[in-house]
Amino acid sequence: MYSFKNDYAEGAHPNILNKLIETNLVQQGGYGDDDYSFEAKNILRQKMNNPEAEIFFLSGGTQSNLIVISSLLKVYEAVISARTGHIFANETGAIEATGHKVIAVETTDGKLKPADLQKTLQEYSLKPHVVKPRLVYISNSTEIGTIYSKTELEALSDFCRSKDLLLFLDGARLGHALTAQNNDLTLADISKLTDVFYIGATKNGGIIGEAVVFNQPKTAEDFDYVLKQKGAMLAKGRLLAIQFLELFKDDLYFTLAKHANVMAAKISDAIKLKGYSFLTDSTTNQIFPILPKEVIEELNKKYAFYVWKDIDKNTAAVRIITSWATDENKVNEFITALKEI
Amino acid sequence: MYSFKNDYAEGAHPNILNKLIETNLVQQGGYGDDDYSFEAKNILRQKMNNPEAEIFFLSGGTQSNLIVISSLLKVYEAVISARTGHIFANETGAIEATGHKVIAVETTDGKLKPADLQKTLQEYSLKPHVVKPRLVYISNSTEIGTIYSKTELEALSDFCRSKDLLLFLDGARLGHALTAQNNDLTLADISKLTDVFYIGATKNGGIIGEAVVFNQPKTAEDFDYVLKQKGAMLAKGRLLAIQFLELFKDDLYFTLAKHANVMAAKISDAIKLKGYSFLTDSTTNQIFPILPKEVIEELNKKYAFYVWKDIDKNTAAVRIITSWATDENKVNEFITALKEI
Amino acid sequence: MYSFKNDYAEGAHPNILNKLIETNLVQQGGYGDDDYSFEAKNILRQKMNNPEAEIFFLSGGTQSNLIVISSLLKVYEAVISARTGHIFANETGAIEATGHKVIAVETTDGKLKPADLQKTLQEYSLKPHVVKPRLVYISNSTEIGTIYSKTELEALSDFCRSKDLLLFLDGARLGHALTAQNNDLTLADISKLTDVFYIGATKNGGIIGEAVVFNQPKTAEDFDYVLKQKGAMLAKGRLLAIQFLELFKDDLYFTLAKHANVMAAKISDAIKLKGYSFLTDSTTNQIFPILPKEVIEELNKKYAFYVWKDIDKNTAAVRIITSWATDENKVNEFITALKEI
Amino acid sequence: MYSFKNDYAEGAHPNILNKLIETNLVQQGGYGDDDYSFEAKNILRQKMNNPEAEIFFLSGGTQSNLIVISSLLKVYEAVISARTGHIFANETGAIEATGHKVIAVETTDGKLKPADLQKTLQEYSLKPHVVKPRLVYISNSTEIGTIYSKTELEALSDFCRSKDLLLFLDGARLGHALTAQNNDLTLADISKLTDVFYIGATKNGGIIGEAVVFNQPKTAEDFDYVLKQKGAMLAKGRLLAIQFLELFKDDLYFTLAKHANVMAAKISDAIKLKGYSFLTDSTTNQIFPILPKEVIEELNKKYAFYVWKDIDKNTAAVRIITSWATDENKVNEFITALKEI
Repeated sequence: MYSFKNDYAEGAHPNILNKLIETNLVQQGGYGDDDYSFEAKNILRQKMNNPEAEIFFLSGGTQSNLIVISSLLKVYEAVISARTGHIFANETGAIEATGHKVIAVETTDGKLKPADLQKTLQEYSLKPHVVKPRLVYISNSTEIGTIYSKTELEALSDFCRSKDLLLFLDGARLGHALTAQNNDLTLADISKLTDVFYIGATKNGGIIGEAVVFNQPKTAEDFDYVLKQKGAMLAKGRLLAIQFLELFKDDLYFTLAKHANVMAAKISDAIKLKGYSFLTDSTTNQIFPILPKEVIEELNKKYAFYVWKDIDKNTAAVRIITSWATDENKVNEFITALKEI
Repeated sequence: MYSFKNDYAEGAHPNILNKLIETNLVQQGGYGDDDYSFEAKNILRQKMNNPEAEIFFLSGGTQSNLIVISSLLKVYEAVISARTGHIFANETGAIEATGHKVIAVETTDGKLKPADLQKTLQEYSLKPHVVKPRLVYISNSTEIGTIYSKTELEALSDFCRSKDLLLFLDGARLGHALTAQNNDLTLADISKLTDVFYIGATKNGGIIGEAVVFNQPKTAEDFDYVLKQKGAMLAKGRLLAIQFLELFKDDLYFTLAKHANVMAAKISDAIKLKGYSFLTDSTTNQIFPILPKEVIEELNKKYAFYVWKDIDKNTAAVRIITSWATDENKVNEFITALKEI
Repeated sequence: MYSFKNDYAEGAHPNILNKLIETNLVQQGGYGDDDYSFEAKNILRQKMNNPEAEIFFLSGGTQSNLIVISSLLKVYEAVISARTGHIFANETGAIEATGHKVIAVETTDGKLKPADLQKTLQEYSLKPHVVKPRLVYISNSTEIGTIYSKTELEALSDFCRSKDLLLFLDGARLGHALTAQNNDLTLADISKLTDVFYIGATKNGGIIGEAVVFNQPKTAEDFDYVLKQKGAMLAKGRLLAIQFLELFKDDLYFTLAKHANVMAAKISDAIKLKGYSFLTDSTTNQIFPILPKEVIEELNKKYAFYVWKDIDKNTAAVRIITSWATDENKVNEFITALKEI
Repeated sequence: MYSFKNDYAEGAHPNILNKLIETNLVQQGGYGDDDYSFEAKNILRQKMNNPEAEIFFLSGGTQSNLIVISSLLKVYEAVISARTGHIFANETGAIEATGHKVIAVETTDGKLKPADLQKTLQEYSLKPHVVKPRLVYISNSTEIGTIYSKTELEALSDFCRSKDLLLFLDGARLGHALTAQNNDLTLADISKLTDVFYIGATKNGGIIGEAVVFNQPKTAEDFDYVLKQKGAMLAKGRLLAIQFLELFKDDLYFTLAKHANVMAAKISDAIKLKGYSFLTDSTTNQIFPILPKEVIEELNKKYAFYVWKDIDKNTAAVRIITSWATDENKVNEFITALKEI
């Protein structure tokens, strides 16, 4: 049985584990006050061409989302998210638990556009009987595998700035977005166009870790208090830092993400060749083919993946995810199996 | 320069890192649904002689404290803690941030007694104008190095049960408590006498991880929702599980804690021999000797540790901490240096 | 200018103000421990035929909603509401501010049905990655003037009990619902079929006050703590109690609501006669006729009301509200003005 | 039986009730958008000589405290209060329930001094492991009847401004403070020296209501959102406004408070004459004489008051409170009864 269920089924890229061993007994300061944290942050600042950026290493996506958002909003302020957004759909009310409403917007492709924001601002204008929309949450790549183009992100960024809205980008799969074949954004663009974003390691080579980046120091003021208060400040910050040190010092992060995308594209191509269609137009490591239920059943004998959504009596959309660790041999076997059905 | 500042200056015991490498590419379920989690939990249940116990792996102490407490209390219920308790003194209002008051009780030795609780219940009896005390938070070993005897913990447990108070033990340094020379408690006792407790790995051989144990399944009902909501559920739960697997399969946890205690005792003995006294009566890995300021200054040239509290113009209490990783040669050198002053 | 904008433009029924004066200097206990509170609660318990009911007097609807809900839910539990529900649409995220997600359900008539709940439970079944739906919030009459029939409320109640969901009815306009011409529910039915509900005085004869009713004493346990904590416990509880004492001792509450409904029906009939249609099928004191914009403009010269929603270039739906204090002469004048256009 | 238990045993000054009746059927806007609110705010701004002040009418003290504080603090910021402060001692954790720690400071007279604040800032300096003190909460008069002198309040205000601390004054009994014989502060001083304060009507002639005053408009920005969100915005704001309109248009507020103080002083003098001492040095309407227990028992036969604190086997401190409504005849009878014992 081989799993395409998610991109966190394996541990970490070996470089990371080796570095942990190599540095293991060097005494370091606690709570992020260690040499590896300094070094990793410097490398990241260079890669995003933003020497001012304030960077913090956290443990996971939900944690990053709730801490960033609750540190930036006043009690009556709210978040705008696509209905498919992770904070709305999959995080057990983590944002609401910090006191803030998440306003969900319907989208066809998982991406927010200025028109969506404009409409929401109108719907939430009856002050003080409604919350005040203040932060826009997007993901790149999105939860359904799509990515933002530079034009799209610029338009969104411009709109947010004109309306005093903060723009926060969830980059749990940022590597996959930035290495997609149709991508034209860079890490430096992301840093320029958003107020805060994060770079996910957990789903792309790390065993743990998201690097939260505040693009302006002012936005990050006193963020360490919130980190500590919400239980996100690890005593051994070196664990998180070393993930990013290894992933970014030689652009391993992008190499690994590219691999995942290529593996997904191989599977996509084979599925298209068989004449099947897709639920979403993904160019990253999550694809959602619509397959006959007998095909699904047959593939499921040797390959694990989620059935995402029933389409009709005979077909369903499934979700297939590849990762930095996906074995190309297994992908080839999967494709062969598919062809033979 | 050698550091006695804390017990998290080094990485992890090598067995843990080796196991991470050994298991690295085995595909596993996410969010704690992996073989290592199952195995580690089974070993822990055996060690505490409680097959019913519900166990969850979290990332750190503050996180464990705030999630356990907020999962157990109603909105108007409060926690009782010693004023020295970590949740009151050092966690940036983490408990209050979940909506609950922490009632601080003065103690001389960092430990709560039934009489303290009785007095607090009386002070907080004017329903509904005061919060309702509902959970008692203790640490073993305490923040000042002391430990609970079996008689003391039994008395506290009896009192709590008679008053419908939950008893929660912070075991960030539980290993050090249970291997102290004057200890008479076992892990099984802790599991019997408390409602919920945790076993800290971060400060005793792990690179990350606390094992939260609910001694009755009913108390743990739906706890996974809260874990997810507060951002504590790691996608790669294997990272946490492997810490406990390696630390407990051969009682390495206790061996390491014992080492830390023995190193601290060596230093204590040398200090006593020089005629100095101590701020607290510690038998664990944190000691608080009161030293002349010139001695402190001299030692500080080669050894790092915190000045804890000014005693008078000429003397101050310092905090010296040893750990599983403390090098006995360095301890010997420190003692020699001390003797020579 | 005469206002049909809302049902809180005037003060209180004179009986209430007279009773306040009559009892003004009688010394009473504070915080609800007064004779008028005891007496008013007894009358209410009789009217709802539930001697066990626990009753609390609060100041307003948003306050009642947020305190009731936050007293009943665990941190990971959520509320299901119609999208038109007051807590979702008009209360500045009051429920989310207590940490709980409000799951909004689309409806055509402002009412929730068992099928809506069933669908929501399915959508929120992926424990622990989603909140746990636990409380169902409905309003009677609804925010768009419709009412629940006995059959509908029984079906909802049965479903909730079978799924361990709490049923909470917002009765800010309960009087209007229970005196609507097509109503077949009684106060006793409401008390039997829900877990908790409230009877609004603010919009029906009182100057302030909602009576929150827990139909089972167990559900109300320790509710007074939450009242105090959220700032809802008035020092002079007599103010709230006297509203209900006067409104219920001779069924004045229902007489007043009936008047409001009859006034609204008169206007409705006149509008129908003119051949206009309505946005919703209201039989209570809020009606939503769809009128040509010139008609709206003309009426607006002498009558104030809200334009609710644009329908097309030439027509819009407006909201006209009557109340216990609506002057029948003004209604007649309005109808005449309408006829003459 | 006559009660000296508190200052909210009676209803409202008759002028208020009469004005409610007089204005009862005038149609007004809801939620504070009414003529009486505008007028009352204008009068208050004149009385405090601050045309810029932003004023909001709320229902009670706990509500005012929790809404003001939670609107001003970031999630990691905390409040400093005397241990006797109402928010620390008597409000069921209302502030903590909004997520903020209340740091309690021991005082002998219920008043905070700059030295207390300085010490607290030092104790809470280990960023980010402790909360950040940001707002100072004081009461005038205090919970034990004492008042701030102008010199004291100026010193506190200067200190707060030099340390970027907000100064918030709970004026539930501000009238009693400002009319005490030894008072040298004016309403204008309060408005100049604090950032935000409130004027309590509930305990001085009103049946409900506290007027929250932000002395700088900037501090009040978007406060109406928080009011609505926490359930404090009454649909019929006229009820609150009319309390202040009547109490302030002819300085009735101060006349009433003065009466309460004079009544308390009469009792104090008689007690002193009998040779008894006092727990606190009160010049306002709350006094705390220390009496033999037989005397307490005897007085209790005809007069209700609280036993505050046991002093020794034979004596206890009691709390006697007078109010705007206290009947001088009853005071005289009480004094006679005391003399005769």
